[in-house]
Amino acid sequence: MVDGKTSNPHPNPARHHDPAERGFASDNYAGVHPEILAALASANGGHVTSYGADPYTAAATDVLRSHFGPQAQVFFVFNGTGANVVSLQSMTQRWDAVICAESAHVNTDECGAPEKIAGLKLLTVPAPDGKLTPSLIDRQAFGWGDEHRAQPRVVSITQSTELGTLYTAEEIAVLTAHAHDRGMFVHLDGARLANAAAALGVPLRAFTTDAGVDVLSFGGTKNGLMFGEAIVVLNPDAVRGLQFLRKAAMQLASKMRFVGVQFETLLSGDLWLCSAQHANAMAARLAGALRDVPGLRITQDVAVNAVFAVLPREVTTRLQEEFHFYVWNEHTGEVRWMCAFDTTEQDVDDFAEAIRKEMAKA
Amino acid sequence: MVDGKTSNPHPNPARHHDPAERGFASDNYAGVHPEILAALASANGGHVTSYGADPYTAAATDVLRSHFGPQAQVFFVFNGTGANVVSLQSMTQRWDAVICAESAHVNTDECGAPEKIAGLKLLTVPAPDGKLTPSLIDRQAFGWGDEHRAQPRVVSITQSTELGTLYTAEEIAVLTAHAHDRGMFVHLDGARLANAAAALGVPLRAFTTDAGVDVLSFGGTKNGLMFGEAIVVLNPDAVRGLQFLRKAAMQLASKMRFVGVQFETLLSGDLWLCSAQHANAMAARLAGALRDVPGLRITQDVAVNAVFAVLPREVTTRLQEEFHFYVWNEHTGEVRWMCAFDTTEQDVDDFAEAIRKEMAKA
Amino acid sequence: MVDGKTSNPHPNPARHHDPAERGFASDNYAGVHPEILAALASANGGHVTSYGADPYTAAATDVLRSHFGPQAQVFFVFNGTGANVVSLQSMTQRWDAVICAESAHVNTDECGAPEKIAGLKLLTVPAPDGKLTPSLIDRQAFGWGDEHRAQPRVVSITQSTELGTLYTAEEIAVLTAHAHDRGMFVHLDGARLANAAAALGVPLRAFTTDAGVDVLSFGGTKNGLMFGEAIVVLNPDAVRGLQFLRKAAMQLASKMRFVGVQFETLLSGDLWLCSAQHANAMAARLAGALRDVPGLRITQDVAVNAVFAVLPREVTTRLQEEFHFYVWNEHTGEVRWMCAFDTTEQDVDDFAEAIRKEMAKA
Amino acid sequence: MVDGKTSNPHPNPARHHDPAERGFASDNYAGVHPEILAALASANGGHVTSYGADPYTAAATDVLRSHFGPQAQVFFVFNGTGANVVSLQSMTQRWDAVICAESAHVNTDECGAPEKIAGLKLLTVPAPDGKLTPSLIDRQAFGWGDEHRAQPRVVSITQSTELGTLYTAEEIAVLTAHAHDRGMFVHLDGARLANAAAALGVPLRAFTTDAGVDVLSFGGTKNGLMFGEAIVVLNPDAVRGLQFLRKAAMQLASKMRFVGVQFETLLSGDLWLCSAQHANAMAARLAGALRDVPGLRITQDVAVNAVFAVLPREVTTRLQEEFHFYVWNEHTGEVRWMCAFDTTEQDVDDFAEAIRKEMAKA
Repeated sequence: MVDGKTSNPHPNPARHHDPAERGFASDNYAGVHPEILAALASANGGHVTSYGADPYTAAATDVLRSHFGPQAQVFFVFNGTGANVVSLQSMTQRWDAVICAESAHVNTDECGAPEKIAGLKLLTVPAPDGKLTPSLIDRQAFGWGDEHRAQPRVVSITQSTELGTLYTAEEIAVLTAHAHDRGMFVHLDGARLANAAAALGVPLRAFTTDAGVDVLSFGGTKNGLMFGEAIVVLNPDAVRGLQFLRKAAMQLASKMRFVGVQFETLLSGDLWLCSAQHANAMAARLAGALRDVPGLRITQDVAVNAVFAVLPREVTTRLQEEFHFYVWNEHTGEVRWMCAFDTTEQDVDDFAEAIRKEMAKA
Repeated sequence: MVDGKTSNPHPNPARHHDPAERGFASDNYAGVHPEILAALASANGGHVTSYGADPYTAAATDVLRSHFGPQAQVFFVFNGTGANVVSLQSMTQRWDAVICAESAHVNTDECGAPEKIAGLKLLTVPAPDGKLTPSLIDRQAFGWGDEHRAQPRVVSITQSTELGTLYTAEEIAVLTAHAHDRGMFVHLDGARLANAAAALGVPLRAFTTDAGVDVLSFGGTKNGLMFGEAIVVLNPDAVRGLQFLRKAAMQLASKMRFVGVQFETLLSGDLWLCSAQHANAMAARLAGALRDVPGLRITQDVAVNAVFAVLPREVTTRLQEEFHFYVWNEHTGEVRWMCAFDTTEQDVDDFAEAIRKEMAKA
Repeated sequence: MVDGKTSNPHPNPARHHDPAERGFASDNYAGVHPEILAALASANGGHVTSYGADPYTAAATDVLRSHFGPQAQVFFVFNGTGANVVSLQSMTQRWDAVICAESAHVNTDECGAPEKIAGLKLLTVPAPDGKLTPSLIDRQAFGWGDEHRAQPRVVSITQSTELGTLYTAEEIAVLTAHAHDRGMFVHLDGARLANAAAALGVPLRAFTTDAGVDVLSFGGTKNGLMFGEAIVVLNPDAVRGLQFLRKAAMQLASKMRFVGVQFETLLSGDLWLCSAQHANAMAARLAGALRDVPGLRITQDVAVNAVFAVLPREVTTRLQEEFHFYVWNEHTGEVRWMCAFDTTEQDVDDFAEAIRKEMAKA
Repeated sequence: MVDGKTSNPHPNPARHHDPAERGFASDNYAGVHPEILAALASANGGHVTSYGADPYTAAATDVLRSHFGPQAQVFFVFNGTGANVVSLQSMTQRWDAVICAESAHVNTDECGAPEKIAGLKLLTVPAPDGKLTPSLIDRQAFGWGDEHRAQPRVVSITQSTELGTLYTAEEIAVLTAHAHDRGMFVHLDGARLANAAAALGVPLRAFTTDAGVDVLSFGGTKNGLMFGEAIVVLNPDAVRGLQFLRKAAMQLASKMRFVGVQFETLLSGDLWLCSAQHANAMAARLAGALRDVPGLRITQDVAVNAVFAVLPREVTTRLQEEFHFYVWNEHTGEVRWMCAFDTTEQDVDDFAEAIRKEMAKA
């Protein structure tokens, strides 16, 4: 079995899915970009030090520094919840709180992990388009020194937002200045950071490092990786104990080389950008095909790879028989359609056609 | 880039390591078994539901049930710390405690994750060979109903142990009966469960399901996977809320199919067993080659893939210049040598020869 | 010193405050009702079992049962934060969440204790008068079974509310039915429960036990005690492990007899009611004296012992030079004036006169 | 009711216990010293600021500074568990650990509060007489910088110990130097600090401030208070955020004046010392009366107010029918007899006589 002399060949398990089938449910329904898969193989074989002291992790760290600046510190973790919660923990004392939008993933979709794992209080504000502003921040930014109030210490924003909208680099710079003036740090949840950079047409650092962000969660999975996210510390003064917090939060991979090589492959060339540009383009194509459909209303700017729309519930129900996608808001019937790095023009056109047909029946 | 028409080819990154280099530091210094790597590719492409509602996760669950019994419930997680902490959390109320050996990984090597993440008190007992016994358990198994004492609710054992020793199936059955009689459940940390089964020469269920274990952490990474461990619930009455606890503990993978397909590949044939048998055999070979070396003392039974030994510190220091391995106990100078699925006979013989040479100089 | 033969007499320390000075800052600026102080002395002397197994705790428990029903379970704690957090913990699993008003004390004034101590996620809804309604609850009551969302399990209401408003018994019964229909329990923060009963003119059980509340925090401190609150479990099926949770939350008093005797004294006759009626009457008197003052607007129903008002900031500033009270909302300039069991008619008349004078200058 | 015109007199509740009955179960079975009770009354009446901004809290803080030095910071809390857990939390980062004796109260009797509330890992060492030594500390003082190990940051000792033994001031100075040399702080659990000072015949600061202790929990309850303990920070550089941690840990009393006045009364004269000397003397008297009883073995130095002894189980059982005391160790039958500030010579002589009689029957 080893040394190439396998006496018991174990045939690959049967394929259990149709690789030609794609939907619009989520960018994490997609698999792994073929170049990433190939890179995993190239990092295999032999022994390297575990838990991150390997050359692939080092190389990936260097690549991330080439994007975000030489001062950046990089801590790879397993998933986005881990990246967000470990980041926020490293930026806070036990008695601190985090200001975020009500719609923030960290507030709505992590089963209370920030509260349960980190004991963090989230101070939320309503933000219809998913974006914070200085005046929204100020609705929760008060009470420092008052022991009865968890102390606002971090503002967490998402770029691109959970609603598919975008901050400009200037908007982020204004927010970070506002937060810093009040003694707070800024965390950026970048689960779809690549999509944001592709849409803005600027380097990753333009709206992160250069805009004053202190710590960011860089999403790899939705950008075509198998698993793995990166906590990128842009301002080392904003964090403490990240090495220990990552381990205690159960986010330290033993065979770390396989996270490192994915990030190196993604970010050393323009794979990250091409994949994001493509996904964004597919969402734009879908939105474009639907703008004139009577009775269907696109509810948010289609800035990146998501289309949010309101349409009749019976149309949604019929479409879901054939296509995977989610109702985002049960109250309003708003749906979310996501495009991925592997969504094709044909996928979009077929889906748009199906929507048009069903809408015509409504 | 998609649809096969990639306009920007991204060459694989350069290999940063020598795939012929192997050491004896840890079984997680090894990479991924080639058959596992191939399986990852076969699960790629197209869209499948994320977070575990995919056919690969279902198939892997079925395979695990074929080993552990149809009642088994399976929850895949990222790593061993996650498997242990989420398991223990699911078996306890907020006021409960866990009895374990002082040397248990959950006590010594997880940066306090059980305490920090789950609020669990570990009630430890000294166990020189890493194995609990009924009388060792009884040193901490008391105080039920006394509100001043965290309530002993789970006994956690490790098989094979952190010291490379083994429980027989009978020993485990005695422990579980003892624990159950006192209203406690039994968790088994099976980071090296395959090595234990290979050494005992019995099916996996013989010393788990059939021996009364309630919940186990099944280790994939040290058995040749890239990442991924399985919480296997053998007694569904022993747990509550695992689905939520896994998510809140940040251990839910989005592209879960790639965990599932690894476990399916590992366990549907005998890959798990062959890899474990091989690693165990390499440790036995190493121990055999060193038993008669004067001044070197093997300190624990070499039951699985680890050799623990005491030798002069200067020998250790000189050996570490060429070979990776760890000093296990700084006080005594005891070292640990681990073999992996890909350790070769030549690796062992070369290392044994080096040890002999250095010992001769001592 | 003991046995009556004290050789070193220790004179009482000098009084450091003026016992004739009273303000309108908070009902916990007041001291202890003289009858409570006398009762503390009567429970002194000799040895009784600590941690609650004493006859005063038993007697107080019986008295609370006479108010809330024979099924009630009683757990005394130190303070209101303890009562709320331990209650909520006992009603939830580790993955559950609590729905409450944004203005709930548990959300705004406990330095994040629910999150930090219990890992609870608070799902908040805006409630301008501090009161939840079924439709407000429904804004957060969804997502059961979805592992990405902390599971709504408890609705927490405050009676009387933090804004001095009241639920009727019927309103509470509608809320509890709504919550129970959805598989949720109802917790009532009764820091000012006595004031509520006094204002409604009904027995304590009318809007608690009889209205379907599952667990309540009964506030003693604001009703004239020195320290001590009671968790009263009205529905024993709603809680688990309270005995242990109280201890682990550091809320178990050793010399518990002194908590017990205070509650027995408060509740065995009508001391609780007289004190609350008086405080309420003083707030009504204050509001009555100010209703026709031009430029001053009372912003909430004056149902219990609080008056909320908006008046010019410079008036507030000048009044605070002589009288203690708090600005409730820095944005709007709204102030809160609280009356206590020992506020006198003269106190109110003097304060009202001062307000009128300062308003006349504005 | 107020203004002295009570229309509804509420007679004191009946006394439910015999104030002449005293046992040897615990020093917290005793009540409140009469001078403390009188002081509570003198602090009553009128309104003072809540949550600690009152003149009694200020005066008590000054008194504590007169004992421990002008640099001392004082935070009053409700109970000993609170004092210990809040202290330790303030001295640690989220990833730190605390070294203590296995027999430490913080390890054995707080229902896991350090783990559950503060996420702290306790690194325990066996200490047969309850006292740590440099070499015992070194058994757990390692692994700094290793992310797999919770980082040893605090050494917690108890003075007098849970076993009634004492550190000399020199022994403590040696321990603190050892800890400080390794980058660790020292916490002292002083639940019976007064008894220790009385036994050593030195000022409180001799074995605390002057011996290098960083933070201590000063026990008031066992020294004759009704409730209340003090966290005394001797080295302000050792702590962070205590004000917030106390509130979030639910240990901030609203009517704080009643904690302050107790401590002022206790410590401004020699009440603390007289009470402790007396309790110690009673334990010495008891031990003296029993030293020559055949078959009864006193197992620990009787340094303060506790006597530990082994005697036949049937004797214990018969004695417990008449006298309250606890079996300390179910395995060995060791019992603990505690004396309090109000134990009389007659109490001791009667108990000793009863023991002798029962032993004679054994």
